[in-house]
Amino acid sequence: MADYKLSPFAPDTFPHLPPIKGFAMATAEAGVRYKGRTDLWVLRAEAGTALAGVFTKNLCPGAPVDWSRKALGAETDGPCLVIVNSGTANVFGGQKSRDAVIQTAKGAADVFGVDAETIQLASTGVIGVPLEASKLVDKFPEINKNLRADGWQDAAKAIMTTDTHAKGATAAAEIKGTKVTINGIAKGSGMIAPDMGTMLAYIATDAAISKVALQSMLSELVETSFNAITVDSDTSTSDTLLLLASGQAGNAVCEDANEPCLTGFKQALNAVMKDLALQIVKDGEGLTKFVTVHVSGAASDKSAKKVAMSIANSPLVKTAIAGQDANWGRIVMAVGKAGEPAERDKLSIWMGPHLLAERGEAAPDYTEAQGAAYMKEAEIDIRVDLGLGDGEAEVYSCDLTHGYIDINADYRS
Amino acid sequence: MADYKLSPFAPDTFPHLPPIKGFAMATAEAGVRYKGRTDLWVLRAEAGTALAGVFTKNLCPGAPVDWSRKALGAETDGPCLVIVNSGTANVFGGQKSRDAVIQTAKGAADVFGVDAETIQLASTGVIGVPLEASKLVDKFPEINKNLRADGWQDAAKAIMTTDTHAKGATAAAEIKGTKVTINGIAKGSGMIAPDMGTMLAYIATDAAISKVALQSMLSELVETSFNAITVDSDTSTSDTLLLLASGQAGNAVCEDANEPCLTGFKQALNAVMKDLALQIVKDGEGLTKFVTVHVSGAASDKSAKKVAMSIANSPLVKTAIAGQDANWGRIVMAVGKAGEPAERDKLSIWMGPHLLAERGEAAPDYTEAQGAAYMKEAEIDIRVDLGLGDGEAEVYSCDLTHGYIDINADYRS
Repeated sequence: MADYKLSPFAPDTFPHLPPIKGFAMATAEAGVRYKGRTDLWVLRAEAGTALAGVFTKNLCPGAPVDWSRKALGAETDGPCLVIVNSGTANVFGGQKSRDAVIQTAKGAADVFGVDAETIQLASTGVIGVPLEASKLVDKFPEINKNLRADGWQDAAKAIMTTDTHAKGATAAAEIKGTKVTINGIAKGSGMIAPDMGTMLAYIATDAAISKVALQSMLSELVETSFNAITVDSDTSTSDTLLLLASGQAGNAVCEDANEPCLTGFKQALNAVMKDLALQIVKDGEGLTKFVTVHVSGAASDKSAKKVAMSIANSPLVKTAIAGQDANWGRIVMAVGKAGEPAERDKLSIWMGPHLLAERGEAAPDYTEAQGAAYMKEAEIDIRVDLGLGDGEAEVYSCDLTHGYIDINADYRS
Repeated sequence: MADYKLSPFAPDTFPHLPPIKGFAMATAEAGVRYKGRTDLWVLRAEAGTALAGVFTKNLCPGAPVDWSRKALGAETDGPCLVIVNSGTANVFGGQKSRDAVIQTAKGAADVFGVDAETIQLASTGVIGVPLEASKLVDKFPEINKNLRADGWQDAAKAIMTTDTHAKGATAAAEIKGTKVTINGIAKGSGMIAPDMGTMLAYIATDAAISKVALQSMLSELVETSFNAITVDSDTSTSDTLLLLASGQAGNAVCEDANEPCLTGFKQALNAVMKDLALQIVKDGEGLTKFVTVHVSGAASDKSAKKVAMSIANSPLVKTAIAGQDANWGRIVMAVGKAGEPAERDKLSIWMGPHLLAERGEAAPDYTEAQGAAYMKEAEIDIRVDLGLGDGEAEVYSCDLTHGYIDINADYRS
């Protein structure tokens, strides 16, 4: 792994993620691919933890994704385990990849005393290199000895690949008068695209929530957080988002995700998910600018999101932003190529506070000098109104720069 | 317009395009945007010429596209005219763009003695700047005086924008024993994407062919030529492909496109279209490598083309090629993200003569040294077999380099 220039949006410090009742963790240097850094993280959740998950929609998923999707459905009365390594994605390694997954799960089951079939496995890194499971299994006794409650920052570091910084978020909420905490970590910088379950993100809470309610909230909130970001339109084979609820806060359980008693929790969960998702796109490979694309006036919300993603993924829009060019012509092009209902002569386009174009032509009061000044900002807001209906969506992206080419023409070599 | 580095695939010389009976043309320096070069081309086709055309599927097309789509359906007994300018695309200029189109057509009708409603107009260049029609109209008398039969190379030059060289092709065929000739020119380098009617391409022949047969052949052949290339996945608002047949070769007319008497003509037309399409992608913005992606074993031809385009458009695949990295893991990713039927463990991948992966894992005899040596080539062949059915498709693309970023972060500024 090369040394990448720190993202201009990297936070000054990693946020303080407090210990959460019911969870313990540790990391290790397993030497899967990287030298002199941790690359293995194990999270142990005590018996009674409810799990919810979302996985990549890529049709060539990794062996760990196949395994974990199945494991999510397995029932257990005992503790459960999440094991993540960086360095290789263990994807497209054929039988070797599948064997590595089984070997890892069985090795962990022996050491940590859990059912192998319930273990959540994830691998992230280069595609096409099978995981040497023994490298992980050899480290499990050490990790089992080191398990502790406050290792979130170390965990976030161990799962990084081309990330330029560790990503974490935390929030608190009340459920029926009981305080609960939500911690999350994530990794991701390239191969970040729409229609996914995200890169890797793990969220833990001590709240007591039914598995059904948990999954329902996760699936709903993923659409406006992890599924609303794009770095390069490429959907990873390993995307995984897990939400674990230990129940040890001792709150009274709300069975249904739509009960008012879960409103505060859902808001806090949304804050953590959105924070992590934005940290990923703000660490997009080679970025210099963070871009928010808001589309309104579309035929439907779904249609608005497609148009917004067409803008957010357009190489010509992204390079114009890198060049600090308020090139709204390319936005018109991206609206039109999305294939969704759009009428050129009803279109209006803003960048930040400036109305650039309305009803199909340049706005009379707009000057290129206004656009040029605005495009120097680090955070660019693009707003498009299609003038057709009530559909609305917001997605998050970054510019396309020489840095992206450097990283991806060199990575793996 | 900046000076762009000549494409490494630029031909040494422009091919010899012979005069074609029934067509005359001239170019001029109208000063629409560029200085010291021609930017206006007028092609005059004599009475009796049949026209066929394909236009952009972008839903925010330019005013010239709206006009020309309508003009294609208009009937005339007189000569017909094609007018193309570079410098501005005359797109998204609202009423000003629409007025410019009408003014251009009326001005030309007066000078050249044709029906305004039948004139084919096209503009290419920056989006959002209305055309000053008077700049074109003022040049029409000069152009009318200069009309000549052998101006194809000058025409190809006048319609260039970010192209690094002029693009032309020619072929001959026989129809019922009579020799006919086909000439074509095209322009395009960026904003080149699937599902289009191409950038700008004009093909002329002296063959006598019915309008219906002409359109049928054009629509069929565009799928495997102009609609099978991609530079950056961005679909232009101005794409236009026109085919004009003057009938002056004097061949006996074949009414139906599928008659055996048109087999030779269709092959020659296909050769010209494919040649021009490949010249466009081989002049892709900033490219260093030309990439052919062949997908077989898909559920259908349509499915194969979607998978091939997913590979050809993936920024991660394109940057890997720029970095001379035989990164087949990214090809697996691109197959999976296409959303078409695919099974990881049936997938095989070749680069040039080398089988890199088969049935879901690295091929036993493949070495990284083989891949590294092959990736130094200027023309890269990627073959993927999905192992599912008989569907097959081939598409053409290029790598994604620093040059693309340079051109598109700077263009317009």
